[in-house]
Amino acid sequence: MIIVLKPKAKKKDADEILKQISSAGLKPLYLPGTERTVLGAIGDERILENLHLDNHPLVDRIDPILTLYKMVSREIHPKDSIVKIGSLPIGGKKCALIAGPCAIESKPQLLATARAVKESGGHCLRGGAYKPRSSPYSFQGLGVEGLKLLKEASQKHDLPTVTEVIEVADIEYVESYADAFQVGARNMQNFRLLKELGQSKKPVILKRGMSAKLEELLLAAEYIVAEGNPNVILCERGIRTFETAFRNTLDLNAVPYLKKRTHLPVIVDPSHGTGLKELVLPMARAAIACGADGLMIEVHNKPKVALSDGKQSLSPKEFRTFVQNLKPFISAVNKTV
Amino acid sequence: MIIVLKPKAKKKDADEILKQISSAGLKPLYLPGTERTVLGAIGDERILENLHLDNHPLVDRIDPILTLYKMVSREIHPKDSIVKIGSLPIGGKKCALIAGPCAIESKPQLLATARAVKESGGHCLRGGAYKPRSSPYSFQGLGVEGLKLLKEASQKHDLPTVTEVIEVADIEYVESYADAFQVGARNMQNFRLLKELGQSKKPVILKRGMSAKLEELLLAAEYIVAEGNPNVILCERGIRTFETAFRNTLDLNAVPYLKKRTHLPVIVDPSHGTGLKELVLPMARAAIACGADGLMIEVHNKPKVALSDGKQSLSPKEFRTFVQNLKPFISAVNKTV
Amino acid sequence: MIIVLKPKAKKKDADEILKQISSAGLKPLYLPGTERTVLGAIGDERILENLHLDNHPLVDRIDPILTLYKMVSREIHPKDSIVKIGSLPIGGKKCALIAGPCAIESKPQLLATARAVKESGGHCLRGGAYKPRSSPYSFQGLGVEGLKLLKEASQKHDLPTVTEVIEVADIEYVESYADAFQVGARNMQNFRLLKELGQSKKPVILKRGMSAKLEELLLAAEYIVAEGNPNVILCERGIRTFETAFRNTLDLNAVPYLKKRTHLPVIVDPSHGTGLKELVLPMARAAIACGADGLMIEVHNKPKVALSDGKQSLSPKEFRTFVQNLKPFISAVNKTV
Amino acid sequence: MIIVLKPKAKKKDADEILKQISSAGLKPLYLPGTERTVLGAIGDERILENLHLDNHPLVDRIDPILTLYKMVSREIHPKDSIVKIGSLPIGGKKCALIAGPCAIESKPQLLATARAVKESGGHCLRGGAYKPRSSPYSFQGLGVEGLKLLKEASQKHDLPTVTEVIEVADIEYVESYADAFQVGARNMQNFRLLKELGQSKKPVILKRGMSAKLEELLLAAEYIVAEGNPNVILCERGIRTFETAFRNTLDLNAVPYLKKRTHLPVIVDPSHGTGLKELVLPMARAAIACGADGLMIEVHNKPKVALSDGKQSLSPKEFRTFVQNLKPFISAVNKTV
Repeated sequence: MIIVLKPKAKKKDADEILKQISSAGLKPLYLPGTERTVLGAIGDERILENLHLDNHPLVDRIDPILTLYKMVSREIHPKDSIVKIGSLPIGGKKCALIAGPCAIESKPQLLATARAVKESGGHCLRGGAYKPRSSPYSFQGLGVEGLKLLKEASQKHDLPTVTEVIEVADIEYVESYADAFQVGARNMQNFRLLKELGQSKKPVILKRGMSAKLEELLLAAEYIVAEGNPNVILCERGIRTFETAFRNTLDLNAVPYLKKRTHLPVIVDPSHGTGLKELVLPMARAAIACGADGLMIEVHNKPKVALSDGKQSLSPKEFRTFVQNLKPFISAVNKTV
Repeated sequence: MIIVLKPKAKKKDADEILKQISSAGLKPLYLPGTERTVLGAIGDERILENLHLDNHPLVDRIDPILTLYKMVSREIHPKDSIVKIGSLPIGGKKCALIAGPCAIESKPQLLATARAVKESGGHCLRGGAYKPRSSPYSFQGLGVEGLKLLKEASQKHDLPTVTEVIEVADIEYVESYADAFQVGARNMQNFRLLKELGQSKKPVILKRGMSAKLEELLLAAEYIVAEGNPNVILCERGIRTFETAFRNTLDLNAVPYLKKRTHLPVIVDPSHGTGLKELVLPMARAAIACGADGLMIEVHNKPKVALSDGKQSLSPKEFRTFVQNLKPFISAVNKTV
Repeated sequence: MIIVLKPKAKKKDADEILKQISSAGLKPLYLPGTERTVLGAIGDERILENLHLDNHPLVDRIDPILTLYKMVSREIHPKDSIVKIGSLPIGGKKCALIAGPCAIESKPQLLATARAVKESGGHCLRGGAYKPRSSPYSFQGLGVEGLKLLKEASQKHDLPTVTEVIEVADIEYVESYADAFQVGARNMQNFRLLKELGQSKKPVILKRGMSAKLEELLLAAEYIVAEGNPNVILCERGIRTFETAFRNTLDLNAVPYLKKRTHLPVIVDPSHGTGLKELVLPMARAAIACGADGLMIEVHNKPKVALSDGKQSLSPKEFRTFVQNLKPFISAVNKTV
Repeated sequence: MIIVLKPKAKKKDADEILKQISSAGLKPLYLPGTERTVLGAIGDERILENLHLDNHPLVDRIDPILTLYKMVSREIHPKDSIVKIGSLPIGGKKCALIAGPCAIESKPQLLATARAVKESGGHCLRGGAYKPRSSPYSFQGLGVEGLKLLKEASQKHDLPTVTEVIEVADIEYVESYADAFQVGARNMQNFRLLKELGQSKKPVILKRGMSAKLEELLLAAEYIVAEGNPNVILCERGIRTFETAFRNTLDLNAVPYLKKRTHLPVIVDPSHGTGLKELVLPMARAAIACGADGLMIEVHNKPKVALSDGKQSLSPKEFRTFVQNLKPFISAVNKTV
């Protein structure tokens, strides 16, 4: 840890801080400069955090040298982790295709969509039973009824499932009906929820918050893993920028950046990530090309009547073409469908 | 509602949509143009939302004419609402000063800080018992123990209190120990939490999310009010932008913008909003000058040893000067301390 | 054009505006609603702009129906434009590889780099003679001396060239030594420069500004084309967001979005767009996969001693591997190297 | 300067870099850690920049300790600078009110507006003769004709003037007709223009770019001052964020932040900064309350027919009320009108 003092800091101020570093069991360093004094502390920086040196009035700023996340870091665990949703491995040679409606609306809707997903080569069914919506007057999901439909569709079409959990109290229901949890962008820093999911053994797809830095996403994953659940899959789904042409700005830079720093699998949701159906295929191709371990795609048996996000959903026929169209890119990265 | 069709839409596509508008009980309008056809629907737009016309493949875009929020809107309720935290009215002639530590750390810390707040003219004590922190390795709060200390400090120094609630399961504890709930920026769209708070009668300070548009903040407030709790106070606390000089970019434009559109009180937190102690006073003065109904300020009896956010906390002595310094600005807006 | 009036607007206010619309030669529409009145104007909206109805105190907002750009729009010119830099066609079946140093530093540097570009299969040489730098104390480029070196390298290695122009007065020099102009992100809205480039016949690579919306990029291109030079190539090079992990956030969504709306070629600069060497190859692959017509890559014969942007530059050996690595992706989009 | 090496860096790599630091005449420091090695360099960091250590493959990152700007820094020049536009001092006890139309449109428009500015207590007349506009089809300004009208209005109403310069070639015209240059947001990093303005003695109002960090604004000012013109006034005019409720997000945090770091005067433009007339007065009051040295306000004799930005312009009558309304806030900061 590097501690830059303010110009007016005196030798005795530096000594005071150096003493604190020493007594925390770290090695202190004194680096007087011509205009500023810089101090260093060598050792585990997490210990030092408890000294709260950044509160010191003569400390100008502190630059950490190590990352704050540990268990999700590739420095600790260099090999790729493979996380399984049901029988579907994510993070290895297979490019995982997770597809389904934004919201579970009815039995006919879900079964028809599940069949379409399966027939076109999708590997996992998604569908929301609990929907976080900006307006209290929008459709909020079917709840447990939706979870039961998801289970039924899963069994009928032999597809593992993932569904969003938005509240600690719902974890046990979701766990008993679905094969994986999804934590949505709005809940990426709902730390209580993350901790409880750390108690489960079922995998968690953790979506990046709309204004979350990648380091914050990794720290959110650390919350889950530190509690004992190593089965976390990170998902890029678009960030909020000044650009109004798209609903969100899908940030594919996140994929190679994360893959280099963490052993966890990284998937991409170009449907929410762009909000425009015309961008789903090209951005899905790009996601694969830059190293994504899988995709999450909105498919709806009748997009025109979807209760949410119909504008960005593919029809069964469009999804079939979509999967065909991806194949050359999956081959180009030496993966398989 | 204005519905702009795509260039290739034909007369019969327009007719199909117009028929849907009619059967929903709204008045349809047909506006053929030289390059594009535009349709209109006159009546309650919330009805129309259920038709999901934005999913229609020939609809280019839809522009709502009315706002999506109703109960928090000034159009419905033109007079300022006054919300009371204990005996403290917020939203009227008094400029409310809410102050206290970021986190409740110990009895001596909280009592000393509460005394300082009271002695300098603060009206309400803040302090977090449940802390949402980016890293799982940071201090997470004292929990119920902290709530009890808050109650004790409240009684000893005759100050109403506000504290953050981060989870539905904690609502009843917070409700029994504090005078107001705070919903933090990370939970602004934790809709389940908002709905449950709508069942309470105690006031809720709702902080703007780090990347929340003001319309989304108003809709989040609508969640609480629509469930039956009209006692909502909005709080601007900084947004995330490209600027790295401050921790957040305090967006004071929000204050006059919100005050014009909603009858709810609007307060400002310049401590979190900037993250820099040197900016707290000037931005507090600016907040008052542009119409804020109150301020939320971090005060700590010993900022140098604070377990969180010490860098932006004022000491008791600094807080005393701070309050003195605000007075001419409070007078300039015809309010009282 | 749709004109939404404020709630307090009366029938006579609407009439006054409708009369203005009529006298401008457009067809007026009157749409009284239950809560708001909406007016419409059918015809060429550019005429209407001169009425400045948005200044009217009773107008709440105006929603244009048509795009503001015309000549660069695919609606006017549905077929892809192919723009030639020297003999290199951009926008067709070939995936153009433009490469070279950020700044021209010396004859040995440029010649060695040009040779490396040519040998590895690059099609065009880039190199800056005039460098816009944030700090006045950083290297500012060699000026005309650099342009002469560029010409020499071009002839020696049979590579067409592109170089940045930052000032109207330099246009004639750049035009006489290079095959294409580059307008940098900081000058995307230097409208005087754009207009003057519209007088040239040489192609212009127009880079997106750091906070430019895609519609603004298209309007900037319209400036050049409207003056008589149709040879514009758009370039995505990263936008500024809250994320600090990368120098910029390369926004690949721009590629399919622009390709759908304009006939102009679109290329991508992943070197500046990310600022991290490790991201250049994966993001270049992604750019091709989502439809880019070419790439702009920083290559330096000795990145370790580069006077600018060495951190993101590829060495000759790295560039060779880079080009090889792209080939399967270029094939997957049915293009050729 | 602090140099953090990558984990795989060996002792000999560190030695190589330390040797470079030494030979540049700086004092090298070697700080081996348990997980990373950190190096230091004590002395003038600007020398070190020429070593381009950030290009070194084993350097993870470099943290400068000193600011990159010098001449505009308060560390060098602790006392406030007062810059005079004509006879109007900016940066001292007077709160400067610069007002006028966005664009000069005609003699009657400018003279009527100038009279209104003068009569209400404005100190300086603004008005654009060269207008940078996003669309090539919008009004572009009257050019030299406009400058002449500005001069005439200046003499008739005894008001010093400021007008935008967008191109090096126009500097001499602007210099001969106006009392101060304005550099607009889009040209904040038009470094050639800045350097040329550094040759003039007339003051320059430098507006912050739409996505410019405050450090970049200070570096842009450094360009002008380093060339010999110390008369620079910084102007906050709104940044681009995700928020779409306002045209720009006026960032008042900039005011106290800049005032602490630079001796240059800082003014605020709430008209462009918000784009909404209803926000101009509250944000002007806030700007004064947080320490602005002056305001730049759009006033138009007939806002309803303004050729640009009418929506945010005040009428003469509104401007009179505006100035009256500001007075208590100007008193509260111990300044005078």
